[in-house]
Amino acid sequence: MKPPPNPHVAAMSAYTPGEQPQGGGWVKLNTNENPYAPSPAAVAAAQAAIGSDGDALRLYPEPASRALRESAATFHGLPADHVLAGNGSDDVLNLLIRAYAGPGRPVGMLDPSYSLYPVLAAAQAAPVIRVPILPELTFDPMAVAGCGAAVFFITNPNAPIGVAFSPARVAAAAAAFPGLLVVDEAYAAFAACDCVDLVRAHPNVAVTRTLSKSHSLAGLRAGYVLARPEVIGLLDRVRDSYNLDRVAQAAAAAALSDRAWLAATVERIKASRERLASGLRALGWSVIPSATNFVLATPVRQGMAESLETGAHAFEYLRSRRILVRRFPSHPLTAAALRITVGNDADVDAFLAVAGEWTAGQS
Amino acid sequence: MKPPPNPHVAAMSAYTPGEQPQGGGWVKLNTNENPYAPSPAAVAAAQAAIGSDGDALRLYPEPASRALRESAATFHGLPADHVLAGNGSDDVLNLLIRAYAGPGRPVGMLDPSYSLYPVLAAAQAAPVIRVPILPELTFDPMAVAGCGAAVFFITNPNAPIGVAFSPARVAAAAAAFPGLLVVDEAYAAFAACDCVDLVRAHPNVAVTRTLSKSHSLAGLRAGYVLARPEVIGLLDRVRDSYNLDRVAQAAAAAALSDRAWLAATVERIKASRERLASGLRALGWSVIPSATNFVLATPVRQGMAESLETGAHAFEYLRSRRILVRRFPSHPLTAAALRITVGNDADVDAFLAVAGEWTAGQS
Repeated sequence: MKPPPNPHVAAMSAYTPGEQPQGGGWVKLNTNENPYAPSPAAVAAAQAAIGSDGDALRLYPEPASRALRESAATFHGLPADHVLAGNGSDDVLNLLIRAYAGPGRPVGMLDPSYSLYPVLAAAQAAPVIRVPILPELTFDPMAVAGCGAAVFFITNPNAPIGVAFSPARVAAAAAAFPGLLVVDEAYAAFAACDCVDLVRAHPNVAVTRTLSKSHSLAGLRAGYVLARPEVIGLLDRVRDSYNLDRVAQAAAAAALSDRAWLAATVERIKASRERLASGLRALGWSVIPSATNFVLATPVRQGMAESLETGAHAFEYLRSRRILVRRFPSHPLTAAALRITVGNDADVDAFLAVAGEWTAGQS
Repeated sequence: MKPPPNPHVAAMSAYTPGEQPQGGGWVKLNTNENPYAPSPAAVAAAQAAIGSDGDALRLYPEPASRALRESAATFHGLPADHVLAGNGSDDVLNLLIRAYAGPGRPVGMLDPSYSLYPVLAAAQAAPVIRVPILPELTFDPMAVAGCGAAVFFITNPNAPIGVAFSPARVAAAAAAFPGLLVVDEAYAAFAACDCVDLVRAHPNVAVTRTLSKSHSLAGLRAGYVLARPEVIGLLDRVRDSYNLDRVAQAAAAAALSDRAWLAATVERIKASRERLASGLRALGWSVIPSATNFVLATPVRQGMAESLETGAHAFEYLRSRRILVRRFPSHPLTAAALRITVGNDADVDAFLAVAGEWTAGQS
């Protein structure tokens, strides 16, 4: 290739995000978006950041996202110097890998988990070490601790499976692991507990968060990492100096301050999650208990046992009825399943009706 | 440091952006922001991307920024597959370095030019090769071509000096350079010509653009790169899959479509630039002819010749009157000078009045 790029970049593949259909008419349950509009306070802050004539947009944003960092710090009861804001948590994950991984400095991850990590590792020519999630849907902390990675990502709650690992298990890994242990808490708002306390107790723990799912702000790109100031200072060096725009900073800071909206929204989603899970169990599908805003469920119907093919068949049937879910066919724990985002009650009804049609059908 | 980060990251320093005073009352002429509110079409698009209740914000953006890419392609008369959008052009510069530079693969740059390049190089452990801008304020294309860099940045028009290099000179460098030649055209809207045609003629030329200065959208973070599809494809692999949010995509696409706004705004800024330059020449300051939205001028007054100290003295005097400009003391070509953003006429009047006070003062 001329001019010659970095060989490891020439050899890698881009991350494949979930399908984002631009036309209407879809029940979109494939990328774990929140079905409810964001906090009115966040929307008002976004509108105010633009203003009536947009004059504020001509000025650069505050480079350190100070107000957002302070809002996140207050939310978690940590000092603001324990927070760094990113253009979505994907930006933060990228910074973590750029600061800690590279050739001879592997990226570790649970398998299965977020398929972005290997892409970010490949972009830095870092090897990837996979520690399996065990059939009982947990992981061995000593397998993490001894894997040899420079930075290890525990997606907790796990995606795409949906289960949460206990803070004690994560702490056991952190205590014995010599590298940086990142707890990717994209879904923690929907779980019973989180690992933020581990940031206080362990200098090698970082916790990442996104406002995409819990705060309905996927369209604005805002996330952050919680860690000791030494870690934050390192990430700050590789961060783009204006990585969050004015609108995202303002909306995210306001969203984190509106705890009542978050509590009410999370309760609604949890209630819909239970309706979805019990509806699927009633159809005979096997459902993994979820600590997230999605459900991993494995379709079956008469004459079609759980299998990759059955999952694909159900997926295509749903898609033909303009219901979009997601499949993860490449791992044995997920190959036969569908990952279904918890939508609003109308979404859940629409999904269950079509899932019921498929289940009642003939092979 | 525990846990141990990449040694090259531990050893580097972050980029220092220009001061962004958050309080009011400043005449802010230090970071080359546009003094006029953005195109009304861009503001309306930004507001529409939020909507009345912000419901659209809960969905991820279109990952490839398709509408923005098409708008930029139309603007430049290139196919859309020749465009990749970034979270500001800084994002694009970063992607270029990640794709092409690294240990043993140096980053080249003109000296002086944009001080972000060495920071981005350091983050990837890439050496930096500086090719000097000559005293006659041009550069030697053969010095660029033979410098041994894997990727070379020509800031054209140059910042912080303000002069433009001819496309023929850039083309001569491109024809003989075996690496990727990036023409950073952050200020090209204010110049008489640009190097976009070189993308058609040379497979190793990329041109970067930002909407921060020309389109008054610094606060929204939007930029792009123009290059052959093979180069675009590489950058796409290392790009964050949702690097631009919904608001930035919508506003930037609309801004690029409003050519009448751009033409009128650029004319106003050029007129103010001439007023600023002639006002400074009338004070006896030496002024470099500018192809940008800033002027590099070297202050003098009775008893104080051009020098680092005189520049610092004038800077501090202006600052004490709440007029903010920028200094670049570390390079001989800029050490004695001030870089003054072209504001609106009121800004220019306020600046010239205080510059006149300083010039008339006693040492």
